[in-house]
Amino acid sequence: MSEIERGFPESEYRARTERAQALMAEQDLAALLVMTEPEVRYFTGYLTRFWESPTRPWFLVVPAAGKPIAVIPAIGADLMGKTWLTDMRTWSAPAPQDDGVTLLADCLREVCGSEGRVGVPMGPETCLRMPLVDFKRVQDAAPSLRFEDATAIVQALCRVKSPAEIEKVREICRIGGRAFDRMREIAGTGRPLSAVFRDFQIALLQEGADWVPYLAGGAGPGGYGDVISPPSDAPLRPGDVLMLDTGALRDGYFCDFDRNYAIGQASDEAKRAYETLYAATDAGLALARPGVTCADLHRAMLAVIAKAGGGESEVGRMGHGLGMRLTEWPSVMAGDETPLEPGMVMTLEPGLEIAPGRIMVHEENLVVLDEGCALLSPRAAAELPVLA
Amino acid sequence: MSEIERGFPESEYRARTERAQALMAEQDLAALLVMTEPEVRYFTGYLTRFWESPTRPWFLVVPAAGKPIAVIPAIGADLMGKTWLTDMRTWSAPAPQDDGVTLLADCLREVCGSEGRVGVPMGPETCLRMPLVDFKRVQDAAPSLRFEDATAIVQALCRVKSPAEIEKVREICRIGGRAFDRMREIAGTGRPLSAVFRDFQIALLQEGADWVPYLAGGAGPGGYGDVISPPSDAPLRPGDVLMLDTGALRDGYFCDFDRNYAIGQASDEAKRAYETLYAATDAGLALARPGVTCADLHRAMLAVIAKAGGGESEVGRMGHGLGMRLTEWPSVMAGDETPLEPGMVMTLEPGLEIAPGRIMVHEENLVVLDEGCALLSPRAAAELPVLA
Repeated sequence: MSEIERGFPESEYRARTERAQALMAEQDLAALLVMTEPEVRYFTGYLTRFWESPTRPWFLVVPAAGKPIAVIPAIGADLMGKTWLTDMRTWSAPAPQDDGVTLLADCLREVCGSEGRVGVPMGPETCLRMPLVDFKRVQDAAPSLRFEDATAIVQALCRVKSPAEIEKVREICRIGGRAFDRMREIAGTGRPLSAVFRDFQIALLQEGADWVPYLAGGAGPGGYGDVISPPSDAPLRPGDVLMLDTGALRDGYFCDFDRNYAIGQASDEAKRAYETLYAATDAGLALARPGVTCADLHRAMLAVIAKAGGGESEVGRMGHGLGMRLTEWPSVMAGDETPLEPGMVMTLEPGLEIAPGRIMVHEENLVVLDEGCALLSPRAAAELPVLA
Repeated sequence: MSEIERGFPESEYRARTERAQALMAEQDLAALLVMTEPEVRYFTGYLTRFWESPTRPWFLVVPAAGKPIAVIPAIGADLMGKTWLTDMRTWSAPAPQDDGVTLLADCLREVCGSEGRVGVPMGPETCLRMPLVDFKRVQDAAPSLRFEDATAIVQALCRVKSPAEIEKVREICRIGGRAFDRMREIAGTGRPLSAVFRDFQIALLQEGADWVPYLAGGAGPGGYGDVISPPSDAPLRPGDVLMLDTGALRDGYFCDFDRNYAIGQASDEAKRAYETLYAATDAGLALARPGVTCADLHRAMLAVIAKAGGGESEVGRMGHGLGMRLTEWPSVMAGDETPLEPGMVMTLEPGLEIAPGRIMVHEENLVVLDEGCALLSPRAAAELPVLA
């Protein structure tokens, strides 16, 4: 299978840091403090599944100039030592009495001087990945510093992907596409949905995914109830519509697209719903280009669905950003006036309610180009595929 | 393969809620507010991989009496509707202007009355899984309520597992054991470590894991550099020591144990390190019983390692709680005076530094009984296994 080189050259991390520092200067921030997996990895390339353990906090301080500083548990020293960072401060964690609090406060005071503003992502789609009590202790230990919301900075940074990042999303999309190409061996009448989930994850790994953080789906007569439930052991039946939606990962970048299948035979109603969603996605793809807003995309897709007489599903939006997270800002929905820019990687995810409690969704991944956009996921079949 | 029934009877969730409410009464809390995946699932059984998306916040309010109340995005309504909860309040998320803030504040005011104390986990090993700005907005919208740290409550609840929960950990440990039984087909001289990771994840899925949130490991001549790095594509070489550490999941419960192997041949040094860790684990297993503290366990294991002349690794502890999270409180380390209780599920994870930059770790899973303890993971081989 074709493979692209893992990781990024140091220049990528340097450019990301300098972009951050330019935005920090506009907001007069002496430091940016981040602590979630994608934020720490964005600036460092620090890639590990160890974040699955909620026990230890991890901190990265981006100063106004120069390289970021890692303030992390000693268990991460070896791996962080392989990144481009040169200043790393570690403690033996867990240490409930002082789990990096003093070390972080000292680092911030050193970076910011006696006064200064520290940016921390505190807004939509962020979370504080450290104990709230400890965050207050850090603030108390550095009383001359002011902590301010820096959500706009991390949003601006991640919104546009570099060419190297886009290639990584393209690669995991190809891998996902190859796994879907094998659905005829994976799903069919009589197979339990739980077995389909299992075998599809195996196919993703075999085709080159590093791991499978996300797999969702559903199956039911002519449509499914929701798109986030775990699979039941009930066997698929003729007339069921099956959907799988995968967020597989390679080298730290996600795909997020889905495929629908009819089991045994497809009802006219299911075919119509599929065609409507396919046409809605086409409308989105035809419209997506720099300057068009997320709300424009939503309006265009919703118009196709409304024209076909469909109701909107309860998913809450019709697409979103994609990259180091399964879902990133912005959202393809009414009210999100974010204009598309070249290099943005997005999903289009129209959904409709076929009948009360029965929905269908469809999702593809794209990158915005200087003119128009290009698919990253292989386009789904134009007609609802039928599996035996 | 043997399988136990999925989920729990309603009585399990009712008992958990009543235990919480008894602890809340001691702290004079009118409500407990939780928002992370394992906390929400603990009270409801709400099991979905959708938490991989960081976009939407989810809230659960446990009142002083009666069932918990879910305040969640509409996309979760169908699945949450299948739990034992009867009061569910939803909004169409994402909604950056008011992402559940008003709905949550209204719910808390309703539950607490005009005054009242709301417990929120804010201490060690917790995080605030909502935007910090929104947490402040909730507090501002309910100014007569006081928000207090409730870490001790969630720690107390999760520390002791029910018999049904213990069976779930036992089952995923059996699954992990069967995957390790297949290591001779998975790893050996010349195989890249990345391929070993891939095939081991596949084996876990084939043996019955629902998904594999965590797989770590390492390989190197006579030991490995750390235990959290992603695998390289470098082929395994004779004399390498290979370690895999898996956090696989079935029905929402984790195993967390590892296995070491020598590739081609084992050096005397590697054999000695393995035997030391095996003996240290034995010392922990022999000691673990109600009343013994985590610090006692640590001391006993460290004594075996010190006697053999080994230095402690940088992992920071030698075991931890296990259950709905890969790692839970308490920690097996000096200073953690938590006494063991019947029903606690723990890992023992001694590690040692063989030489600078070269470590070995070993890990097993156990449940504390009324007298002594029982292994949940199948015990590793007494001597370092050699793979061709």
